[in-house]
Amino acid sequence: MPASSMEELVSLCKRRGFIFQGSEIYGGLQGFYDYGPLGVELKNNIKAAWWRSNVYERDDMEGLDSSIIMHRLVLRHSGHEATFSDPMVDNKKNNKRYRLDHLVKDQKADVIAKVAAEMGEDASNFPALVAALNKQAARASEALKTAGVRDPFSGEVGDWTEPKPFNMMFKTTIGPIADEESYGYLRPETAQGIFTNFKNVVDSTSRRLPFGIAQIGKAFRNEITPRNFIFRVRELEQMEIEFFCVPGTDEQWHEHWLERRLSWWEAQGVPRSKIEILDVPKEDLAHYSKRTYDLMYDYPTLGHEEIEGIANRSDYDLGSHTKSQAELGLVAKVEENLDSIAKLTIPHPETNKPVVPFVIEPSAGVDRAMLAVLSEAFTKETLENGNERIVLKLRPHLAPIKVAVIPLARNKPELVELARSIKNDLQKLGLGRILLEDSGNIGKAYRRHDEVGTPFCVTVDFDTIGQSAEGADQSLKDTVTIRDRDTLQQERIQISELSAWIQAKLR
Amino acid sequence: MPASSMEELVSLCKRRGFIFQGSEIYGGLQGFYDYGPLGVELKNNIKAAWWRSNVYERDDMEGLDSSIIMHRLVLRHSGHEATFSDPMVDNKKNNKRYRLDHLVKDQKADVIAKVAAEMGEDASNFPALVAALNKQAARASEALKTAGVRDPFSGEVGDWTEPKPFNMMFKTTIGPIADEESYGYLRPETAQGIFTNFKNVVDSTSRRLPFGIAQIGKAFRNEITPRNFIFRVRELEQMEIEFFCVPGTDEQWHEHWLERRLSWWEAQGVPRSKIEILDVPKEDLAHYSKRTYDLMYDYPTLGHEEIEGIANRSDYDLGSHTKSQAELGLVAKVEENLDSIAKLTIPHPETNKPVVPFVIEPSAGVDRAMLAVLSEAFTKETLENGNERIVLKLRPHLAPIKVAVIPLARNKPELVELARSIKNDLQKLGLGRILLEDSGNIGKAYRRHDEVGTPFCVTVDFDTIGQSAEGADQSLKDTVTIRDRDTLQQERIQISELSAWIQAKLR
Repeated sequence: MPASSMEELVSLCKRRGFIFQGSEIYGGLQGFYDYGPLGVELKNNIKAAWWRSNVYERDDMEGLDSSIIMHRLVLRHSGHEATFSDPMVDNKKNNKRYRLDHLVKDQKADVIAKVAAEMGEDASNFPALVAALNKQAARASEALKTAGVRDPFSGEVGDWTEPKPFNMMFKTTIGPIADEESYGYLRPETAQGIFTNFKNVVDSTSRRLPFGIAQIGKAFRNEITPRNFIFRVRELEQMEIEFFCVPGTDEQWHEHWLERRLSWWEAQGVPRSKIEILDVPKEDLAHYSKRTYDLMYDYPTLGHEEIEGIANRSDYDLGSHTKSQAELGLVAKVEENLDSIAKLTIPHPETNKPVVPFVIEPSAGVDRAMLAVLSEAFTKETLENGNERIVLKLRPHLAPIKVAVIPLARNKPELVELARSIKNDLQKLGLGRILLEDSGNIGKAYRRHDEVGTPFCVTVDFDTIGQSAEGADQSLKDTVTIRDRDTLQQERIQISELSAWIQAKLR
Repeated sequence: MPASSMEELVSLCKRRGFIFQGSEIYGGLQGFYDYGPLGVELKNNIKAAWWRSNVYERDDMEGLDSSIIMHRLVLRHSGHEATFSDPMVDNKKNNKRYRLDHLVKDQKADVIAKVAAEMGEDASNFPALVAALNKQAARASEALKTAGVRDPFSGEVGDWTEPKPFNMMFKTTIGPIADEESYGYLRPETAQGIFTNFKNVVDSTSRRLPFGIAQIGKAFRNEITPRNFIFRVRELEQMEIEFFCVPGTDEQWHEHWLERRLSWWEAQGVPRSKIEILDVPKEDLAHYSKRTYDLMYDYPTLGHEEIEGIANRSDYDLGSHTKSQAELGLVAKVEENLDSIAKLTIPHPETNKPVVPFVIEPSAGVDRAMLAVLSEAFTKETLENGNERIVLKLRPHLAPIKVAVIPLARNKPELVELARSIKNDLQKLGLGRILLEDSGNIGKAYRRHDEVGTPFCVTVDFDTIGQSAEGADQSLKDTVTIRDRDTLQQERIQISELSAWIQAKLR
């Protein structure tokens, strides 16, 4: 039973230290989030699972970690300077600025219908309506006003300007002198670092086609209206693969990656039944794409939204960044590049002639993955005694804390020291974070660890040290209780067997 | 026998795919580097070792992953807007700009002596000379000119301006409208994200003093003259701890962390004998510091340079970011803060009265760590046959590739398939990257894996499949050769015993 609303998730994330608003003590910074003690572990576990699946478990993949700030020419030739923009409109009455599609989407149904009617479009085809508004700027401005589109801030009908493109890249000055050439961009996607390092990776690893380059890292998008918690943010983290293959084999590899990525999501507890595969219509494709599958996960409250895009980018990217474009027989239509100093080709595996490979790009968001994983794991249960409990049924490899070791009484040094020594032994298994939980109240500790998804609680009690209150049962000496998060079953086992038991369950 | 020069290291890093210049195909971007297939693994292994030691193996630490872009008020109240700057001078002849200390340091000895004489300083005390130049701007400009300080770009004596402070933070506009308030900074250190989340972490974890918060992440500094490969860069990665303790116990904790960090470096292969502990003189301390130990590692070519700083920051940071400063009895001198909405106190563990804790900050650079680890591991050996080999004697837990599994012939499917299945089995142990190395030339493969520090090469040969050329020795069937990187010894063992053997060596 996944989360029924985004509020439920947000509330848990704040309360338990998964996610905080960025720069919160100064009123917060919209679109920026900080990951707390449990959030950082969950996030790292998701990233590690992705890296394992896509780099370690394959024989045709290399990893990369390229810089965030990039040369302006990279983002010029990638097409981002010209096209990485959203249309926005201003309300002349109060100078507030909105992203066009968000503004319209947030209106009441009858207002949207009126806008559509003014534009001669069908209100049920929202993307087509937005495209029309964007293309016919003067008419759009009139349509928004005539239809009575309200400003979400003031609540009043706005005096709307024509839609204008707003480039979403963050720009910054590099070096001590601010002049026309001394700026760079924070990368809007990690992908460009892969393309610009294509030749470096080929030269240093002797890779031949087909092979891929994988990267995890931050990307930045100056969203006009960040929203929906960590779903649409200005600072995000991506897990991207650029898989290079012989032209002509690209469609086959596209299907391979679709299948492979769906089964990865399944292994993280995000079932296929919750993911719609959107075969993006030709007219909605990005400029670089031959074909794109969008994986649309059914988020609580938000509904189906993109959790991963798997695009066939043809030879657009390497073709855009290479020198000597004219002689390479590129399939994609690219802008002229007189700046690049590298020829981005690789020998064709059969003919040995230089070829610009096609690229399949599975691109997933870490933050969106986290939201989906949390949402699927979130469970509200009514126990036999009528009490309700919230439990995060995370897959063990994703759980922020693998085992909590709890001394039954915090003021009993024997219990605490034994618990600490058990924690240290379990920590050595290298399974992730093991916590010594000596807050002193066993009931509260169990509730907390249910809510943060700790698979096992190990309790060290008076029986463990042969000092049970009701006449010590010496047969229980050197045993501990293990409580299972999901079944709530408790069993007693010998301390000496604990490491093997835990390892069997968690590896 | 560590690396004898930086050039040796740089050359290896490029050739083998550890580190590339950022945005290289567009001529490169100064101060930005990309980590290649092996670099990303080494970097991740260093970060994991740090996290394990400082978060997992302690009972008094929480992790955090806060955003890179921060609210301008965070960096105002941290003191960075006012003081995070370097003095720079311009050459009026060609408008080139230099960092004052770097410019002077790069002059010939007699020129430096002349500058010192002009300023009435002792040339042998370089920090004092720079401080004097910085404080007496008009005199400094004259001194540089009179002493004949040359422009490193033109090679000619420059017409030098007075030194002026240059703020090193990268700034960027946030949101669709560029006005006076809509900007933020790329954090110049991860530490500020820890201070601003102090209350969030305390509230969600119920921590009591003493405890720490650890964070690994990117930080950005607009260095005027980035240099020395990955030593002084504009985009760097930090591993920082802010350890909060009861005022009065801070000096003791400072010593604890000094000791603890030195032993961590030792465990990464960076011995104490190569690290000088600089007890930073009072007059050179940063504005927030009560006392600071700088760990100065003896880098090849560069000499002793900072690899980690361990600062006693007193109650400066929390005191600067808290509201209600006046009533908190702060020890540090802080600027007034009327913007913060949070009181950054915690109950004193004995009196339960709210207290602003003192902070010990061990702050290490990931890139500098990588450079030190590579430098120590770098070894040139003359073998018995007179050949020279380069080998990276990395500690196994840091090695980018743990095991290379090599089929003796790449065109023999039986060998390749068996090697792949062995690779898959070893990969499941979760030790890191295991590589199927089917480049086909065993000699080259060994050389390559020596150079990148792979501890073990496992070779699948014709004996393994019972098909040795010189009449098959069936007793060798199902055995493989293991070659040890450091001893060059080879031994044959049963495939069935391989996992246990490798695990025993690498865990």
